[in-house]
Amino acid sequence: MKTDRRTFVKTTAIAGAAFSILPASVLFGQDKAPKVRLGFIGVGLRGQNHLDLALRRNDVEVVALCDIQQRMMDMSLNLVQKAGKPKPQVILDGPHGYRKMLENKNIDAVIISTPWEWHTVQCLDAMNAKKYVGCEVITGTTIEECWELVQTSERTGMPLMMLENVCYRRDVMAVLNMVRQNIFGELVHLQGGYQHDLREVKFNDGVKPYGGGVEFGEKGFSEAQWRTEHSVHRNGDLYPTHGIGPIAMMININRGNRFTELVSYSSKARGLHDYIVKTAGENHPNAKINFKLGDVVTTMIKCANEETILLQHDTNLPRPYSIGFRVQGTNGLWMDVNKSIYIEGMSKQAHRWEDAQPWLDKYDHPLWKKYANDAAGAGHGGMDWFVLNAFIESIKRKTPPPMDVYDAVAWSAITPLSETSIRLGGETLAFPDFTKGQWMHRKNTFARDDSY
Amino acid sequence: MKTDRRTFVKTTAIAGAAFSILPASVLFGQDKAPKVRLGFIGVGLRGQNHLDLALRRNDVEVVALCDIQQRMMDMSLNLVQKAGKPKPQVILDGPHGYRKMLENKNIDAVIISTPWEWHTVQCLDAMNAKKYVGCEVITGTTIEECWELVQTSERTGMPLMMLENVCYRRDVMAVLNMVRQNIFGELVHLQGGYQHDLREVKFNDGVKPYGGGVEFGEKGFSEAQWRTEHSVHRNGDLYPTHGIGPIAMMININRGNRFTELVSYSSKARGLHDYIVKTAGENHPNAKINFKLGDVVTTMIKCANEETILLQHDTNLPRPYSIGFRVQGTNGLWMDVNKSIYIEGMSKQAHRWEDAQPWLDKYDHPLWKKYANDAAGAGHGGMDWFVLNAFIESIKRKTPPPMDVYDAVAWSAITPLSETSIRLGGETLAFPDFTKGQWMHRKNTFARDDSY
Repeated sequence: MKTDRRTFVKTTAIAGAAFSILPASVLFGQDKAPKVRLGFIGVGLRGQNHLDLALRRNDVEVVALCDIQQRMMDMSLNLVQKAGKPKPQVILDGPHGYRKMLENKNIDAVIISTPWEWHTVQCLDAMNAKKYVGCEVITGTTIEECWELVQTSERTGMPLMMLENVCYRRDVMAVLNMVRQNIFGELVHLQGGYQHDLREVKFNDGVKPYGGGVEFGEKGFSEAQWRTEHSVHRNGDLYPTHGIGPIAMMININRGNRFTELVSYSSKARGLHDYIVKTAGENHPNAKINFKLGDVVTTMIKCANEETILLQHDTNLPRPYSIGFRVQGTNGLWMDVNKSIYIEGMSKQAHRWEDAQPWLDKYDHPLWKKYANDAAGAGHGGMDWFVLNAFIESIKRKTPPPMDVYDAVAWSAITPLSETSIRLGGETLAFPDFTKGQWMHRKNTFARDDSY
Repeated sequence: MKTDRRTFVKTTAIAGAAFSILPASVLFGQDKAPKVRLGFIGVGLRGQNHLDLALRRNDVEVVALCDIQQRMMDMSLNLVQKAGKPKPQVILDGPHGYRKMLENKNIDAVIISTPWEWHTVQCLDAMNAKKYVGCEVITGTTIEECWELVQTSERTGMPLMMLENVCYRRDVMAVLNMVRQNIFGELVHLQGGYQHDLREVKFNDGVKPYGGGVEFGEKGFSEAQWRTEHSVHRNGDLYPTHGIGPIAMMININRGNRFTELVSYSSKARGLHDYIVKTAGENHPNAKINFKLGDVVTTMIKCANEETILLQHDTNLPRPYSIGFRVQGTNGLWMDVNKSIYIEGMSKQAHRWEDAQPWLDKYDHPLWKKYANDAAGAGHGGMDWFVLNAFIESIKRKTPPPMDVYDAVAWSAITPLSETSIRLGGETLAFPDFTKGQWMHRKNTFARDDSY
């Protein structure tokens, strides 16, 4: 009996470890130096960052570009030309033009860099069209969308990787390396967030992407055209993934651990109105808008392994940028806001912070050691190179992406859960288990070595 | 009609402003240089700090000392002798010996520095005996105790001041000064807490007060004799007042604002067990204890004026000391962990932290400017001098203490509320209004000038 049960458990665990989403057939070329044929859905400023990096790679062909604005397409074609690469298929055919692109059989994978509210439908359409999907952050603005992404990825066998670049930030990867070498001991509490004064992103003059006016929506340009509407209508942690992604990887979320509960509180909303009045006066029409998004939204998450996570979303007030990382265990802690670390028995003085940089240098992640030169000059301090590289390499190597659909939706689901928690007056909500129990068996394969 | 209503409102507001607790008769001497006659309930290490400061004052007579331990009494009498002051009445008569001291008609006021669980009954007995009460932090370990303190103070007319010294920390008072001069704009979000590695306070060798062993309770010494039991049996923010006191004064809690809701999450509890095993091995009997107190307890509070407050209690893990203050408004923010500030339009570089110290110097509070020399050498960087001074001066001047019974219980009530919230799985709880509506009318008189 006992042996039978052990055998069953062992077999199940092995099945679980192997539980991954990959297509049955490999779509791209079978030659020794395979090239991934990419299509871009959305080549606004963010899409152009990815395009620029893709154009530099010899293992990528840029096959098609899709957008809804001539200005962005012209900028993108200019990048292609400068890179000396062949002109791709160009689709400028309204918001659903991307569907025409998905019919292109020469495309293996798509990069989606569109407004948040378009991510889910485009991911779904792309997976259904048997394309690998690399999608910019926020995949799913409702819990139902999150489930649909999981079900579609499982049904079609097509992987979805959310392109969460902060998972590849150099200091974050060094700290992940330290976590795995048990420097912090058992992890107990973690913090992150998105504390970024976005007022000049949410408002501009309709010409420049950043600042110079208080316009948004139809009168705005770039992100102000769509992102600001979320601050008008929604109240919650609207942008959790930069903070939660790296934390989730450190404590093996969806891989032996999972988020179990969440609660959010929101402060008053003053910052955006205040900015409009300060910039354009009380009589500007936008001064009448009632922005729903609280200036500081604080979220607490509890995990199956009893860690607590604190997330802060703070994008409406004047402040220096900070993700606000804190990684704390039984041996000590790291914080990024004061660039400091303390490890008992290793730090020079008891009870005293020390500069984190020598530690970050010492524990520099193998991936950064290997690829720092390749990443140099890429966006956001180089981390954009790593996240695109991981997407491309996982396709080439026929392995699951290091961050998969379960990560994408678990991290994104924080937004709708926090909105509901706030709406219910600070109610703790159960966190869905998008892995349907597989989190107990799955293994963390993120950045385990220097391969990708 | 309209005039009538206005008159009514005005009258009510004035009545509210005058709503304060003061005894009908003045107990202490009527001469021009009144002396406050003090009795000390509890002269352990903390009580001795207060005693030492009282002995230096010419406006105080130390009339009586009460404790349960000969060792602490001997240390205290030594302090009296060194100060060249007359030997006070000495009461060493078990845990209820203080009641004998309260019968002494020559005592105007008492300072209570005993274990938390004794504070309420001693405060109640002292107010009923018509003594002014200055009580060390944590007044009320249950909501019922908080209400009883309020009711007794109101009934007897005797003020209760909780001796929350961090309200007088120099940087905190400078920031309060900045808040009142609108440097931060409208306040939106605030943070504080108690992040202090107390492992060598919670455990010692029974001889020294700090460290050297893993004993507590009957085998421990000083705080380890009683404080550690709270970590064995309770899970919540056990020590909120150092963080919340200064914040409460900045946003006028109980004076035009109040705490309305609270929720707490607790991390796993690993630190204390880990410390015992690291220090004394797995076979030490205390390694078997199941400590209930989560290593990091995070609490969110919402206020009537829609500010959010984040509190963190973190006393079981190796870490540098930090209250973790953050004061954030529509113009910018200050944080203590990185010793930095950012004020839009005033800070030198946009989006960049700057050193807070020049700001703290510039906005040094009038009280500190006036009394820094007097406070020099007093405990906790001088702030202990200010809190005792405020207690004594408010008695001499026949004014309500700057922090009153409503503050004492609102700040202390965070503990039982956080315990209940955690026990209920992270439920948001309504915060009692201990002022019974008077918070709408009361005025903030804390440190308004350089008087006390």
